[in-house]
Amino acid sequence: MSWLILAPISGVISIAVAAYLYYWVVYRNTANDRMREIGGAIQEGSNAYLKRLYQALALVVAIVGIILILLFGYKTAIAYVIGSAFSALAGFTGMQVALRANSRTAWAAQAGLNKAFSVAFFGGSVIGLSMVGVALLGVSILYYIFRDPSIVLGFSFGASSLALLAKAGGGIYTKTADIGADLVGKVEMSIPEDDPRNPAVVADNVGDNVGDVAGMGADLFDSYVASMVAAMILGAASRKTDLVVLPMVLSAAGILSSVLGMFLVRPKENEDPGDALNRGTVFTAIIFTILNFAVMRLLNMNIGLFWATFAGMAAGVLIGFTTDYFTSTDRQAVQRTAEVSKTGSAITVLSGFSYGLLSIVPSIIGICIATLAAWYISAQFGVSGVYGVSLAAVGMLAISGMVVSSDAYGPIVDNAKGIAEQSGMEKAIVEVADKLDAAGNTAKAITKGFAIGAAALTVLALFAAYAGTAGVEVLDLLRPTVIIGIFLGAMMPPIFSALTILSVSKNAFVMVNEVRRQFREIPGLMEGLARPDYYRCVDIAAKGALKELVVPGFLAMASPIAVGFVLGKAALGGFLGGSIFTGIIFALFMANAGGLWDNAKKLIESGAYGGEGSEAHKAAVVGDTVGDPFKDTAGPSINTLITVMSLIATVFAPIIGAGLFAAL
Amino acid sequence: MSWLILAPISGVISIAVAAYLYYWVVYRNTANDRMREIGGAIQEGSNAYLKRLYQALALVVAIVGIILILLFGYKTAIAYVIGSAFSALAGFTGMQVALRANSRTAWAAQAGLNKAFSVAFFGGSVIGLSMVGVALLGVSILYYIFRDPSIVLGFSFGASSLALLAKAGGGIYTKTADIGADLVGKVEMSIPEDDPRNPAVVADNVGDNVGDVAGMGADLFDSYVASMVAAMILGAASRKTDLVVLPMVLSAAGILSSVLGMFLVRPKENEDPGDALNRGTVFTAIIFTILNFAVMRLLNMNIGLFWATFAGMAAGVLIGFTTDYFTSTDRQAVQRTAEVSKTGSAITVLSGFSYGLLSIVPSIIGICIATLAAWYISAQFGVSGVYGVSLAAVGMLAISGMVVSSDAYGPIVDNAKGIAEQSGMEKAIVEVADKLDAAGNTAKAITKGFAIGAAALTVLALFAAYAGTAGVEVLDLLRPTVIIGIFLGAMMPPIFSALTILSVSKNAFVMVNEVRRQFREIPGLMEGLARPDYYRCVDIAAKGALKELVVPGFLAMASPIAVGFVLGKAALGGFLGGSIFTGIIFALFMANAGGLWDNAKKLIESGAYGGEGSEAHKAAVVGDTVGDPFKDTAGPSINTLITVMSLIATVFAPIIGAGLFAAL
Repeated sequence: MSWLILAPISGVISIAVAAYLYYWVVYRNTANDRMREIGGAIQEGSNAYLKRLYQALALVVAIVGIILILLFGYKTAIAYVIGSAFSALAGFTGMQVALRANSRTAWAAQAGLNKAFSVAFFGGSVIGLSMVGVALLGVSILYYIFRDPSIVLGFSFGASSLALLAKAGGGIYTKTADIGADLVGKVEMSIPEDDPRNPAVVADNVGDNVGDVAGMGADLFDSYVASMVAAMILGAASRKTDLVVLPMVLSAAGILSSVLGMFLVRPKENEDPGDALNRGTVFTAIIFTILNFAVMRLLNMNIGLFWATFAGMAAGVLIGFTTDYFTSTDRQAVQRTAEVSKTGSAITVLSGFSYGLLSIVPSIIGICIATLAAWYISAQFGVSGVYGVSLAAVGMLAISGMVVSSDAYGPIVDNAKGIAEQSGMEKAIVEVADKLDAAGNTAKAITKGFAIGAAALTVLALFAAYAGTAGVEVLDLLRPTVIIGIFLGAMMPPIFSALTILSVSKNAFVMVNEVRRQFREIPGLMEGLARPDYYRCVDIAAKGALKELVVPGFLAMASPIAVGFVLGKAALGGFLGGSIFTGIIFALFMANAGGLWDNAKKLIESGAYGGEGSEAHKAAVVGDTVGDPFKDTAGPSINTLITVMSLIATVFAPIIGAGLFAAL
Repeated sequence: MSWLILAPISGVISIAVAAYLYYWVVYRNTANDRMREIGGAIQEGSNAYLKRLYQALALVVAIVGIILILLFGYKTAIAYVIGSAFSALAGFTGMQVALRANSRTAWAAQAGLNKAFSVAFFGGSVIGLSMVGVALLGVSILYYIFRDPSIVLGFSFGASSLALLAKAGGGIYTKTADIGADLVGKVEMSIPEDDPRNPAVVADNVGDNVGDVAGMGADLFDSYVASMVAAMILGAASRKTDLVVLPMVLSAAGILSSVLGMFLVRPKENEDPGDALNRGTVFTAIIFTILNFAVMRLLNMNIGLFWATFAGMAAGVLIGFTTDYFTSTDRQAVQRTAEVSKTGSAITVLSGFSYGLLSIVPSIIGICIATLAAWYISAQFGVSGVYGVSLAAVGMLAISGMVVSSDAYGPIVDNAKGIAEQSGMEKAIVEVADKLDAAGNTAKAITKGFAIGAAALTVLALFAAYAGTAGVEVLDLLRPTVIIGIFLGAMMPPIFSALTILSVSKNAFVMVNEVRRQFREIPGLMEGLARPDYYRCVDIAAKGALKELVVPGFLAMASPIAVGFVLGKAALGGFLGGSIFTGIIFALFMANAGGLWDNAKKLIESGAYGGEGSEAHKAAVVGDTVGDPFKDTAGPSINTLITVMSLIATVFAPIIGAGLFAAL
């Protein structure tokens, strides 16, 4: 128990380092007037979006908070409110730094690759470190006060509520703006990408930050906290306080590893900066493994738990390295899809769809191996197997600080590149920005694998935590209520995907009309004499995205409760199981198919199979447009969907009975 | 037991009626020379395909047969061989009559709608009745001889092996030919659809018969037998011979109902013939309900079993009427998809994809209600709930004779319409053929719902039969091996879909080149002076389809066995469960999305949103091309995939142990 103090200390250290880096980044030189203007508009637009998001969140938190007070008392409700507020705070901080780091990176590019890399990477680090710091601080302090993992569960549920809004809402927002900007600006008016005359250009740039930075940060905050809570609940079930404290101590060790690992990230002469980022991740993993071993020894833990934690992390790295296979331009899937684009867009879609389905295989096998290994090793050493799996998830997510840092680096350099181009910087400097941007994609392949593997193990652990909390000792797949629960749960990810994709097309329709209207009604716009009404576009995208969220959001929150009360707690267990199985399949499929189509288009644009403007290119553009909401809207929301459903089920578990068909 | 005699008697009656109708159809007048020529070419091509299919089947049967002899003795092996042979025989007969009925229907259209309708419908009836007759005869005679449902299981496995080849192979074949004919003939050479100058035209027409008649017949034969066997195995588990005999007696009653119902199908003056078909199905269902009640009374059965059987059938009808919702041109999904086609093909694809995902909801809820109702009612009356579910499946499939008859009517009138057009018949007659064709689509909506509901209940019953045979009393979703089994099983339908779709695009590529070659190298072809080499195209499509089947076929057969031996019988149970959950989702999604895109295109062609030749139409054509292998290749094969995997697992269950991770 006394070791627990490490958790808030690491949390504070993490936040302190983040604050230091924040000021370091903010005090970098900040670019010319043109940059300032572009950056300012994006900043203003992002904050307008965040304001709407937090208003929606406040409404949800108020309603759910009242329900929680009525049903479970004020403690869970307080934890819930704090969870959503902390997650929002981390997201807000992340956005502020990302919005400032991009133009500073572009400016620093004048001083060379390494300087610019540092600005971008430390910008990303602020996001990573503030996220894990705030999360661990929240979890450990709540546990200090209440000494009850089921109260901490409320914190996790709060973080998850925000994540659902941020992820799905951000996904709808970003694609609405993207389609609006492209369809009218690029296609109809024939003005270049990112042209300031395009009324939707700010909304589009805001979208990158909203989806990639705020959304992704909220998502990992969510998994990070959920994995800890699941392990704490499972630990509490065995009545050993040590096992409850351990996940927090491991996370503390993970934060220290991340801080150390971060300062080792520095590209060597002529090195691809992407390799430097990946080296940082690998170093962090190694340091964490050493600390993991030390923690187990110092706390006198069963060594099986060390191996379980290690197995999870190793599997995460493996999944990371194989995820790349189906989306890399060097591999068959992308190349074949690009090649068949010569026969038209239908075949492009079919090819990407099929390879996308096949792409789930390596990751799912990786998840299966991690689960089996963690369980089996724990059991061999006489520890609870399911606790071992939950520790594997904690182990994977412990180094989130580093993973999020390299991930957040991506949108910062992407934006930096855009700013460098728009503000008319020299060609050599744009090339530096280009190199930095390419590195973001290299790093993304591995961090994406980590995120998927970790989310899968987390929801499996939560699934076990639900069963434990509900008192379901055996969840028999041969009972009809369980079978029906699985069917209903398995439908949720497809339904949620469909609703969010339809939202994009509905919302984009409104956006397209607004952009057309501005071009038509604002005199001098096309000549560059008048400024378009950027904020109206931002507002349309934001309002629409949050409005469209009502149905899928309500479905996500209400359906587990409905299934639980009508069909009983066993059926709800099946429901969670079903949502996990199809959820992971759909999340992988959509993310990879989207990435694959994107890269097939890029491959053709690099000159293959006819190059830009060819028939193959047109077909590939169709594939890419189909893939966009797959990879940026529906796919990434599914993780959050299944986490939030598992958390709600676990929160409500104590008051859910056997249902109306108890006889079965 | 003595009631069992009803089964072979009904089987013989069914075959006798089928034989009578066969000769009735064949002795109708058979058209002009032009028709004869076209019909002859299609016939020749179809038989060439069937020959290849049966060669492949013989190879599979020989290999599997030897394995079965070595592991389980000659009885199961004999049943297996007979099962595949009987199913092949029924399929072959069906094809022969379908190939003859089409030109005769076209010819009869000269004597009016009713005459032509009779020819087409009785043609379809031969398929329906010969199928159920042969199946019930096989099952009941094998049971008479061996008195052991586990031997009859071999028969079912044999039928399923053929169905897998026929369904997936036929699906790949038909789309290969279709794309080859359209892409070169229609698009590149600008000759009309079904033009005899097109070298792939015969292959394309053959494809309709191969996919819709032979494939669909084999599929329902498969489900029909599997549902009976599952109920027999579950009945045997309760050690009551009555419960083993009951499914066969119910099927016998179903055959009699179908024969009676069939002779009630006759369109009234000015009535849509589709309504006549549906009336036939409803009448058959009513007659069967009466006979069902009589059987339960005469055999002194628990009345709960009557209600379980009835619940299944009622749910089937309900599912049938709701399936239509997402694919009907009168409804929002199709209309919205057609409308958004104005913004380009990517949005068409996204819209159809999303509505396709939503379309799974009513059917899955219907399946859940049927399962819960059948189980709950049986349990209320003190009978085994799972046996009740298996009877619900038997009840639904009992009227397969009628359902297949109205379904097989579809491709016959479709072909008749093509023949009427190609052979230059009068406009009024083509219009009659057109009306008949539209009726096929009306009927299809309901029969499709039946087929999906029945297949779902059948695999659920088989799943229980597997658990019973393997001695798995509790299949605990909280055990890691079960979780991993589910993950692996859940991957199978997506993998299978991806492989078959990729096969189509690979095979179509070869076909396109061959068609181009013939246009280039055969002098006088475009002028109509030389005949193209139809059979080479048929052969390419057939050879390619069967070659492409090797990998997915092997995967379907080998993976359950591998999972069983490595991870144990509980994991294999999970594997089957997982494949059922995602299998039903993918089957519904693909079938409905494909139908939806098809109808969106037709809606535009009827003049909406710009009509034929507009930008919206081009986008809708892309949607339709994407949907084609969804609804005709991958979607329909998934039913068979999950059935065949369940059967293999049940056959091998007795020799599968606890696996390598027994400790978990």
